[in-house]
Amino acid sequence: MTIERPLDALNQAKNGAVVVELKNGNTVRGTLRAFDIHLNVVLDDAEELKDGEVTRKLGRILIRGDTVTIIMPTE
Amino acid sequence: MTIERPLDALNQAKNGAVVVELKNGNTVRGTLRAFDIHLNVVLDDAEELKDGEVTRKLGRILIRGDTVTIIMPTE
Amino acid sequence: MTIERPLDALNQAKNGAVVVELKNGNTVRGTLRAFDIHLNVVLDDAEELKDGEVTRKLGRILIRGDTVTIIMPTE
Amino acid sequence: MTIERPLDALNQAKNGAVVVELKNGNTVRGTLRAFDIHLNVVLDDAEELKDGEVTRKLGRILIRGDTVTIIMPTE
Amino acid sequence: MTIERPLDALNQAKNGAVVVELKNGNTVRGTLRAFDIHLNVVLDDAEELKDGEVTRKLGRILIRGDTVTIIMPTE
Amino acid sequence: MTIERPLDALNQAKNGAVVVELKNGNTVRGTLRAFDIHLNVVLDDAEELKDGEVTRKLGRILIRGDTVTIIMPTE
Amino acid sequence: MTIERPLDALNQAKNGAVVVELKNGNTVRGTLRAFDIHLNVVLDDAEELKDGEVTRKLGRILIRGDTVTIIMPTE
Repeated sequence: MTIERPLDALNQAKNGAVVVELKNGNTVRGTLRAFDIHLNVVLDDAEELKDGEVTRKLGRILIRGDTVTIIMPTE
Repeated sequence: MTIERPLDALNQAKNGAVVVELKNGNTVRGTLRAFDIHLNVVLDDAEELKDGEVTRKLGRILIRGDTVTIIMPTE
Repeated sequence: MTIERPLDALNQAKNGAVVVELKNGNTVRGTLRAFDIHLNVVLDDAEELKDGEVTRKLGRILIRGDTVTIIMPTE
Repeated sequence: MTIERPLDALNQAKNGAVVVELKNGNTVRGTLRAFDIHLNVVLDDAEELKDGEVTRKLGRILIRGDTVTIIMPTE
Repeated sequence: MTIERPLDALNQAKNGAVVVELKNGNTVRGTLRAFDIHLNVVLDDAEELKDGEVTRKLGRILIRGDTVTIIMPTE
Repeated sequence: MTIERPLDALNQAKNGAVVVELKNGNTVRGTLRAFDIHLNVVLDDAEELKDGEVTRKLGRILIRGDTVTIIMPTE
Repeated sequence: MTIERPLDALNQAKNGAVVVELKNGNTVRGTLRAFDIHLNVVLDDAEELKDGEVTRKLGRILIRGDTVTIIMPTE
């Protein structure tokens, strides 16, 4: 799907699975429920990953935008 | 519950238990009393956690938003 | 006492004792005299703490808000 | 092609291949689909590179602007 | 003296001696001549201190506000 | 040539060679094509330098302003 | 000379020698030609110093304000 602005990519990914990489080197994945222009994001059924393995179940989380490096829609 | 914007997740969590992870690697949990758009948050009955164990009783705390990485409502 | 916004917690703590944790890992305590929306704070009779022991008497200090991680009212 | 403002360079690079270097030392390349004034960028068919070798296939990614150091159009 | 806002503490300290602690761990003291809301400050007769000893005479200096952690009026 | 404001120095350097030092310790040089008030800059024929030796040919690059420490016009 | 605001100190120092200390620990000196409210500064005949010795001749440089910690007029 074509997009015009970066946040369009998140709009298309809403309610789907995303992987979020954080400035502290952590990776979380979950279902994208909400986001804003700062890239604050809310994920449901979030899990922390290390080397592709789930290391922690987090449930719903709000991630502060300035801690995000990359968001990858995965479906 | 569905949410439209990231801070809606905090509105729903108000007066409930949350876990807050900080940029310095610390984790605190407590009862969410107040927050603002910077993610400054006030917790009551806050406790510092290490490896899931309570290491310090903090009482009421104000956490500066820019030190927050993740907020997890836990109920 | 109930509060609506994060800074209400500081308003209630005014002229009382607070502990302030800083991004550089230092902890100071003192009597909260003034604060603003950036969390710049002025403490009177401030003391630096390490492992709960007073390591330095500082008198009146102005702490720049962006160096603050947590403010704990202690009375 | 001549450009007037820095973002003109990204406009010319749109839908072409770019390499993006990040503050954490990582390098990704992909097809530039969207960007904004913060240098938030969306890449399609993104790949992570180490020493010029592809180490991970990432698909579509949104990179937060403040994590970018350099963007190189490569065609 | 009572103060209403954090910068009132600097107003009262003007033309008096202050100690300024910096994010890089350095400490300087001098006579406070000017400041602004960013906590940019100008000191006259500034000296760098280490463990309470003067290590360097700096004369007049402008310190960029975002490098300040604490300002202590000392008289 | 006299200048009034810092960016005047970049205006005079436009289409000439500049060396740019980055916060991560890297140095690049190239022909300055565009810049803005954030010090986002576009260089053509950019090269990465280490100890004065060219270590990598980069072609056209956009450098994010907040990663810049120093810009030196060299002609 | 008396000053009212921090930048007045730079106005008085214009076209004179200054030493600028940077967040990365480097020190440069040169003739102050221009500055702005961000503390972006342009120096002419700039030199990099280590332990008081000149280690590099830089000529004209633009220093990005957020990399500055201290500016010292030296005449």
